[in-house]
Amino acid sequence: MAKRTQRGFASLSDLEEAAARKLPSDVWSYVEGAAGEGATHRANHEAFDRWVVRPRLLAGVREVDLRTRLLDDSVNAPVFLAPTAYHGLIHPEGEVGTARAAAAAGVVAMFSTLSSRSVEEIGAARPLGPRWFQLYLQPTWAGTERLVRRAERAGFTALVLTADVPVLGVRDAQLKTGFAIDASIPVGSGPGVLPPSRGPERAGATYAVRDAREETWEVVDRLRNTTRLPLVVKGVLTAADARASVRHGARAVVVSNHGGRQLDRVSSSLAALPEVVAAVDGRAEVYLDGGVRRGSDVLIALALGARAVGVGRPVLWALAVGGERGVARYLSLLATDLATAMVLAGKRSLSEVDRATVARQSV
Amino acid sequence: MAKRTQRGFASLSDLEEAAARKLPSDVWSYVEGAAGEGATHRANHEAFDRWVVRPRLLAGVREVDLRTRLLDDSVNAPVFLAPTAYHGLIHPEGEVGTARAAAAAGVVAMFSTLSSRSVEEIGAARPLGPRWFQLYLQPTWAGTERLVRRAERAGFTALVLTADVPVLGVRDAQLKTGFAIDASIPVGSGPGVLPPSRGPERAGATYAVRDAREETWEVVDRLRNTTRLPLVVKGVLTAADARASVRHGARAVVVSNHGGRQLDRVSSSLAALPEVVAAVDGRAEVYLDGGVRRGSDVLIALALGARAVGVGRPVLWALAVGGERGVARYLSLLATDLATAMVLAGKRSLSEVDRATVARQSV
Amino acid sequence: MAKRTQRGFASLSDLEEAAARKLPSDVWSYVEGAAGEGATHRANHEAFDRWVVRPRLLAGVREVDLRTRLLDDSVNAPVFLAPTAYHGLIHPEGEVGTARAAAAAGVVAMFSTLSSRSVEEIGAARPLGPRWFQLYLQPTWAGTERLVRRAERAGFTALVLTADVPVLGVRDAQLKTGFAIDASIPVGSGPGVLPPSRGPERAGATYAVRDAREETWEVVDRLRNTTRLPLVVKGVLTAADARASVRHGARAVVVSNHGGRQLDRVSSSLAALPEVVAAVDGRAEVYLDGGVRRGSDVLIALALGARAVGVGRPVLWALAVGGERGVARYLSLLATDLATAMVLAGKRSLSEVDRATVARQSV
Amino acid sequence: MAKRTQRGFASLSDLEEAAARKLPSDVWSYVEGAAGEGATHRANHEAFDRWVVRPRLLAGVREVDLRTRLLDDSVNAPVFLAPTAYHGLIHPEGEVGTARAAAAAGVVAMFSTLSSRSVEEIGAARPLGPRWFQLYLQPTWAGTERLVRRAERAGFTALVLTADVPVLGVRDAQLKTGFAIDASIPVGSGPGVLPPSRGPERAGATYAVRDAREETWEVVDRLRNTTRLPLVVKGVLTAADARASVRHGARAVVVSNHGGRQLDRVSSSLAALPEVVAAVDGRAEVYLDGGVRRGSDVLIALALGARAVGVGRPVLWALAVGGERGVARYLSLLATDLATAMVLAGKRSLSEVDRATVARQSV
Repeated sequence: MAKRTQRGFASLSDLEEAAARKLPSDVWSYVEGAAGEGATHRANHEAFDRWVVRPRLLAGVREVDLRTRLLDDSVNAPVFLAPTAYHGLIHPEGEVGTARAAAAAGVVAMFSTLSSRSVEEIGAARPLGPRWFQLYLQPTWAGTERLVRRAERAGFTALVLTADVPVLGVRDAQLKTGFAIDASIPVGSGPGVLPPSRGPERAGATYAVRDAREETWEVVDRLRNTTRLPLVVKGVLTAADARASVRHGARAVVVSNHGGRQLDRVSSSLAALPEVVAAVDGRAEVYLDGGVRRGSDVLIALALGARAVGVGRPVLWALAVGGERGVARYLSLLATDLATAMVLAGKRSLSEVDRATVARQSV
Repeated sequence: MAKRTQRGFASLSDLEEAAARKLPSDVWSYVEGAAGEGATHRANHEAFDRWVVRPRLLAGVREVDLRTRLLDDSVNAPVFLAPTAYHGLIHPEGEVGTARAAAAAGVVAMFSTLSSRSVEEIGAARPLGPRWFQLYLQPTWAGTERLVRRAERAGFTALVLTADVPVLGVRDAQLKTGFAIDASIPVGSGPGVLPPSRGPERAGATYAVRDAREETWEVVDRLRNTTRLPLVVKGVLTAADARASVRHGARAVVVSNHGGRQLDRVSSSLAALPEVVAAVDGRAEVYLDGGVRRGSDVLIALALGARAVGVGRPVLWALAVGGERGVARYLSLLATDLATAMVLAGKRSLSEVDRATVARQSV
Repeated sequence: MAKRTQRGFASLSDLEEAAARKLPSDVWSYVEGAAGEGATHRANHEAFDRWVVRPRLLAGVREVDLRTRLLDDSVNAPVFLAPTAYHGLIHPEGEVGTARAAAAAGVVAMFSTLSSRSVEEIGAARPLGPRWFQLYLQPTWAGTERLVRRAERAGFTALVLTADVPVLGVRDAQLKTGFAIDASIPVGSGPGVLPPSRGPERAGATYAVRDAREETWEVVDRLRNTTRLPLVVKGVLTAADARASVRHGARAVVVSNHGGRQLDRVSSSLAALPEVVAAVDGRAEVYLDGGVRRGSDVLIALALGARAVGVGRPVLWALAVGGERGVARYLSLLATDLATAMVLAGKRSLSEVDRATVARQSV
Repeated sequence: MAKRTQRGFASLSDLEEAAARKLPSDVWSYVEGAAGEGATHRANHEAFDRWVVRPRLLAGVREVDLRTRLLDDSVNAPVFLAPTAYHGLIHPEGEVGTARAAAAAGVVAMFSTLSSRSVEEIGAARPLGPRWFQLYLQPTWAGTERLVRRAERAGFTALVLTADVPVLGVRDAQLKTGFAIDASIPVGSGPGVLPPSRGPERAGATYAVRDAREETWEVVDRLRNTTRLPLVVKGVLTAADARASVRHGARAVVVSNHGGRQLDRVSSSLAALPEVVAAVDGRAEVYLDGGVRRGSDVLIALALGARAVGVGRPVLWALAVGGERGVARYLSLLATDLATAMVLAGKRSLSEVDRATVARQSV
């Protein structure tokens, strides 16, 4: 108990509850809220129950090397911080706290267009770590381009295009508490950035696309011609969209259903992973987010072909409980959990993790 | 919270609870009550969990067109109000409130023989929308014919023969509260209409068919020869009954198990849909009711071959909470939910929804 | 609410709770208690969830005939009272009340060797209905034979040999309350009848078989040579035991796991039914008990090859609530439930119920 | 109720709750705690639900013989006490009480390197029964060898090498209560024995292997050359590790996932059993622990190829409730449960238990 009071959470499995005690209920409804009845959100977790890790005894593994490369960045673990909006709602340190903790851990952090801090502030956070910029298209192409330039100048090393929000999903929990993203919430990115009250964050409303052309795959070509930053397409769940991503020059795709927050009743991320991996066929890196909570989850996703996995809500929980220090502690617990799973599976490094590392749960 | 107090419900998923707070427990037992142990009622919902919608990214969908034709009526959405009895028990506005809300939304509303308001009152409600008359056979053919004529004169544009109530299902919840449909409940249709206390609504009793001949498929022939209104057969769950419906001239069938209120342990509506669609083979329109709660449910049913889907209990819940305004709000939330699902699935119009829009949930 | 107070229960689904309120907790632990963790007891019920009834519309069914023959007895319904011990623990009327109610309903009642009333008292109960005697082998063959003769003289028309109690199952609920079947419980059958404190009713103890030869299939031959009453073997769950039953002259078998009270983790009765029906291959009648609660359950078992089904605990519940009148009311509710299911499945009589009446639940 | 107070527990199914009332919550978190989210711990139990025992009627079984040989020891039942740490935390009698109860029951007891009592004290406990020593490798080979010699001299008859703890699993329940195995816990084995605060019991920390060579399969060869005690490898879940165990001279393997305490999301023990049995192919004995609670569980594991099964947490529960007498009572209840299952399955002795004794649960 003493432990819990000091640090807020003592294990990966009491983090969510610790955060729930910290946050006001309307902010909580925003953090936790999924689309519809939450079927996809639940499926994201349950999908991992269908797989088992194959252990190996007496494999002589003394140390585990979790390092890998994600695009042009070297990282300490195959885990990244998935982009989530408005960290300032969660903790006064906001994205700056998150950025510092991720950098200290040596993992990629993706920051949202809808951040509480500006790209410049986030980029200036020290220590410096690999930071990728998550892009929502702006009402005008000029606005989008301006945002890309600012991200480049602020030192972001990749551009993650969120492709699954042509309209915001219907999030009942948020509708019930009446929590709305509006002008009262400070947006760090400043003028020219898509105001959340008018854009995809307007709950339940139909998203009026400003320029239909930009909402097609041509926008990816256009971005590729605009910046030298590598492009990542986020929200891919089907072979068709995976192939389109590669065809239009994406260097990586994120298998994701937006944490179950966009269209309820789509596939869980993990169930969609093999289809996407097969379609990409090595021509791009494949990441996954959605439902990853434990080291064994990471190992399963990697065994099924992901190069790295993202964590979303847990980072916000940890931020809520302890700011930068909370996120640092969370990342440490997750890395320990993954390293433990690697040792018990007899794997010295990520290159040893392959399809035979896991098997379907026997029923 | 403020929101909930004002409007009664803020999302599709808090509507049921809001209605439960409004209605007396015995009326609630009538509204919610299913046959037997409620296995089929639950299965109606769970059947949707076995399917996923296949999303499409960057499809350039700016606007969604939900319009379609159901028989001879043009409607704004592939959703109809399934026939339910005695709206006057739920709200003073009764079927008139329901009719107004449906008309404003531009969707088909089916009204029960066992309505609290007369067919004439319902027909006179303005604005005018497509209204179909749900028919229970009367003790005499003359009585049945009289009812059909009144419906024709009142402007109803189709006749929906409920074929799954030769005897009323055994509804335990209702037996427990002792709620009975008897003379104390005002029936709007007036003399000549099957009194609910003697007919199929007498809970648990064996239905004594007055004229056995009318209870066979010949009644459909006879109705077809009696009226020029298109005929719809409701309660079809098997290929055999689907083919019989077509053979006897039904222009549409409703795949339905009466909301799980007739025979517990029949198939869920959704599980029965493919069999019925295959048997009908394009010779009639196929609708479905049972378990539809969200836009994604509608999309799944449409992808599996339904032309439209009906909603039953949710309409009563909305009526309980807010009368006509409640129903209007509910229909608006459902249309938004469906439109959102369409955009995220990359569909501009219903004609683009096909079998490839969905897939079995991967297990 | 008034209803429930008056009659104790208003539907099949509130009977169990009504009985739980009536009975002392230790007697309740005896009535409800299953072997082990209750897995088989639960499986008995859940097995029905895997089947659906195929309805038929407009089949012109006006009246349903539920009559059939079970061995040499004509009955009003394909339902019998499975043998259960010590009705005097449940209600002062004991087995006499049960016998009267069953006779009035025109169904077979099986009475246990371990009855609170003597076979002579049960046989004398009026009105007279078909009564079968459930036999536990006695310590000596002379004792067994004496019991058979008394049953013959008392007018019992068949002998049901319970073959699944060479030792009593381990019933945890009963062990927890400390409820024991001992000398303080009056046994109606009098001297010469297996005292429950020494025999198979001694909880958890190893049953010391007095005469090993009698515990083999030869006991069935011996019984057949002792009495002209038709023999029924109860407790059959496998093809091997079904064939042995036929080979040794059983005229019927009961597919049963003793209500989940003997060996936990055997097959549910319904799952075992097809195997037994195939093995018997028409050479004997096949009945089933275990998990039957509703009319649709009866219909499913019949469609899968049972000629009749037994109900056990529900009869005790009804007896607890209202004695003879309670049992009568229960049997009436069950018959109505079955008749309703028959009408909705389009079946006029039991001979029309066949394998096509049901289908596997679509998953 | 009187019963429960006297003996603490009256059946196998109220033992866990009785123990929970006795132990402080932090010790309880250590006893119950599983790795991660406990998925594997739950799977260990649920795996038994997928099998049914095939009963046999009138098989003439009067007495059941549960005796068997495990390696060089004759035992009264195919059940052993799986090694668990620090019995002194649970009850003052510690491992001495456990050893006495197991000896009286005539079953093998495995004692942990991490015992509260020294190997000498455990070996001196009377009556004498078959005792096997569970070995954790020590920081130096000299330390390991010294421990083996002490076990030999103390009369232990086999050596069980736990091979699935190169690093301790992440046990959240324990992290939450803050319970730590540290210097305040008396370790009976004395100086030279791996101090738990530095070794595999240091929660969540990476285990720094002192001699990497010893952590490979060569350690098994080395142990075989060090002692004449038969070697058992514990923690085998795959064919590869089963074959390696045999190749390196193990005379038995234990299919085990350490009670779900090491790597969450590995296979349940029972699901892994057939693969291991096939790979071993008769060249070693195969045991299983994990999820065994009832006699029918034992029978299922035996039918699928295990020669004996281990029980872990239930022994600690029984020890908590009643010390030596509690364990004795527990073992008696379990033997009765198994004997009852054997009689009802028509099996006189363990040699009659084969694959046909069980079948997959029909779904």
